[in-house]
Amino acid sequence: MNKYKRNQRIGALMKIFAEKPNYIFSYNYFCEMFNAAKSTISEDIAIVKELVEEIECGKIETMAGASGGAVFIPLLGKKEKEDILKGLCDLFSQKNRIIAGRFIYMTDLFNDPNVVSNIAKIIASEFSGVKIDYVVTVETKGIPVAILTAQKLNVPVAVIRRNNKVTEGATVSINYVSGSSNNIQTMSLSRRSLKENCKVLLVDDFMKGGGTAKGMADMMREFNAQVVGTAVVIETKEPEKKLVDNYLSLMVLNRFNDKDETIEIEPNLKLLK
Amino acid sequence: MNKYKRNQRIGALMKIFAEKPNYIFSYNYFCEMFNAAKSTISEDIAIVKELVEEIECGKIETMAGASGGAVFIPLLGKKEKEDILKGLCDLFSQKNRIIAGRFIYMTDLFNDPNVVSNIAKIIASEFSGVKIDYVVTVETKGIPVAILTAQKLNVPVAVIRRNNKVTEGATVSINYVSGSSNNIQTMSLSRRSLKENCKVLLVDDFMKGGGTAKGMADMMREFNAQVVGTAVVIETKEPEKKLVDNYLSLMVLNRFNDKDETIEIEPNLKLLK
Repeated sequence: MNKYKRNQRIGALMKIFAEKPNYIFSYNYFCEMFNAAKSTISEDIAIVKELVEEIECGKIETMAGASGGAVFIPLLGKKEKEDILKGLCDLFSQKNRIIAGRFIYMTDLFNDPNVVSNIAKIIASEFSGVKIDYVVTVETKGIPVAILTAQKLNVPVAVIRRNNKVTEGATVSINYVSGSSNNIQTMSLSRRSLKENCKVLLVDDFMKGGGTAKGMADMMREFNAQVVGTAVVIETKEPEKKLVDNYLSLMVLNRFNDKDETIEIEPNLKLLK
Repeated sequence: MNKYKRNQRIGALMKIFAEKPNYIFSYNYFCEMFNAAKSTISEDIAIVKELVEEIECGKIETMAGASGGAVFIPLLGKKEKEDILKGLCDLFSQKNRIIAGRFIYMTDLFNDPNVVSNIAKIIASEFSGVKIDYVVTVETKGIPVAILTAQKLNVPVAVIRRNNKVTEGATVSINYVSGSSNNIQTMSLSRRSLKENCKVLLVDDFMKGGGTAKGMADMMREFNAQVVGTAVVIETKEPEKKLVDNYLSLMVLNRFNDKDETIEIEPNLKLLK
């Protein structure tokens, strides 16, 4: 079996932690992987812990004892959060995004792993101290955000569907009123997607009136699930009063102008306090 | 500005590479980040390169010259591929997955970032040498696989929708025949989602007759896009003849039995050659 040098172990540990944030690795796992004594691994972890703090990408928490382990919790510093939000606002307010019917085309951004990964970094960082069992979203555009956020939080996703599908088994369906258009719509979720009494983080791409978020919250009641947070990527400034109260948006769409094709989006300043 | 020790730089480099595979980082980027000379960074990269080969997680390629840089290309060894595929087969053939209408419930697995990340690792590794501009999928269940595969390949995703949405702008719609049920269905894709003459990797969760994959390929023709690969997570053994010829499946569903609730799924042996 290979023996690794210290800087090799540090490198490998950082790769392992980065690929599975919020996952508790046991010391034994590392001991076997590196063919090294627990005391050696402990020293390695201490170095990694210091490094993670120094480069300000989060923290390493360690658990002592026979079943001891270590977990990497990614957290963003204020500067990085600011940079990411500024970059996102620039992307979402690019020219040529206004399309027929006074909509803003954002699909390309919500399907770009680099963009979505930055969005997920912020959401996961903001809800890092909160106990979460599932990230819940509604199809379709919010799915990449949900899956990358869930990956960072190390929890599964549940996707609420617009239509009832045969491959979902027994489902719960509810009707809800779209906050902005007053249309009645249906959403359904497989009974198997959530465990009873779980804690969920709701995630969606866009919020205007808040009808979808409210629908999701109503759906969660059917599962006796507790909503511990709601995150949307972009909210519109108007209407100021949404159908849900507690939610976190990353960006605020102030206004846009069809004629000169300007879109005004700014970071949610609450995030930068 | 901070000065970092070698093992700290090695650790930070591994984290950076792991979080953005297939992305070319310039030496200058690292020099600035670590406040270090190019010669130092070159030595660091050489150590990282050796490490990546030693732990068999892929390779680091370096480009010389003024605009030189380095890129981490994740590749799976045969042993890891085998382990992942075996784990996936175990999960997908768990008891209690057979639901009314003789369907297998798989949604929870396709929404679990750990499961999907393993699936994406294999697909990205298999298509690692191929020039790909986009990963393309059809909503809904394939989206997590597409986004995590695309993240590993460092390309964007395009999601074909079942319905035409107002937020997608101008779309191209086609009708296609579902291979297994002979139903005629519609799929549509925003004109903005793909650049002309691009190369695409098609990804989907499940293939029975191959009708959806053929529909996706037909759609790609409308965009003058070249299909350079098709990957599905699970294919059914029957019908043996699908509507598409060249595709790669990770697993094969041989048969399942409602009565004793056994599901027989095995790894695609082609992957383990």
